[in-house]
Amino acid sequence: MKLVEVVAVGFLLFVSGCSSSPKANTSREDLLRTDHEWAVVASEGKSVDRIVSFWSDDATITPAGAALVSGKVAIRKFVEQSLATPGFHIDWTPEQASASEDGTMAYTTGNNAMTFPGPDGKLITVAGRYVTVWRRDSSGAWKCVADIWNSGT
Amino acid sequence: MKLVEVVAVGFLLFVSGCSSSPKANTSREDLLRTDHEWAVVASEGKSVDRIVSFWSDDATITPAGAALVSGKVAIRKFVEQSLATPGFHIDWTPEQASASEDGTMAYTTGNNAMTFPGPDGKLITVAGRYVTVWRRDSSGAWKCVADIWNSGT
Repeated sequence: MKLVEVVAVGFLLFVSGCSSSPKANTSREDLLRTDHEWAVVASEGKSVDRIVSFWSDDATITPAGAALVSGKVAIRKFVEQSLATPGFHIDWTPEQASASEDGTMAYTTGNNAMTFPGPDGKLITVAGRYVTVWRRDSSGAWKCVADIWNSGT
Repeated sequence: MKLVEVVAVGFLLFVSGCSSSPKANTSREDLLRTDHEWAVVASEGKSVDRIVSFWSDDATITPAGAALVSGKVAIRKFVEQSLATPGFHIDWTPEQASASEDGTMAYTTGNNAMTFPGPDGKLITVAGRYVTVWRRDSSGAWKCVADIWNSGT
């Protein structure tokens, strides 16, 4: 290996490991696709396993109008209880995604709608907005580490 | 420069440019300090300029119970209106911070409390939880790009 080749390898290691925009752009597309896939699975409301798989093991949900839900065990229970609620339905539409320069952290935002029984037992649908924070896991997959939503009214 | 030295430089470039934990750790401390400073300034409610300076120019606020507020001009107006509301007060306590491996993006979470006139004109205080997403600007300072909060009840 010649000197110039070694310098070139060092430089390539540096650039490929650290260049920003391409990773951030690829990440953005990945994220919007992942968030959309998650919304489809959650909207179907059939597979707790698949729905829960989008969160990291140490994720925290900050639900509007309910206590924090932290960790996979609590999250699974939260999802199971939601799906067992008569008339429950959730859907969301990702609108924006933005990633760190190295593509290891990101957030998505969008609109959601949740249907559940109101105080009088009749189903109500509440529209909201959400922010979801993501991290890449060791396999390179995006996992939600924090999500929160609220209503504009 | 010997071959071994060139390899070492290449490796150091790679490690120093891309190593994760130290940057993420330093970022975490910076973030908690920054979020705390912001809370102090907002709680004092005196300087719109200082309060607004913590958001990026393209930030979006997702306030509980109100429409999205996007961009610095709208954010400044939102802050001015809040501070002009009789009895308005806000405070928050950062609890956790987590950054991307390269230290360019992060999020903080914590608890907040907001006091404002209720429907009957009497002041009410609503406790909440928030998620704030941050990016480093070109000067290296953390700026909030997205923040959202809700109430647990």
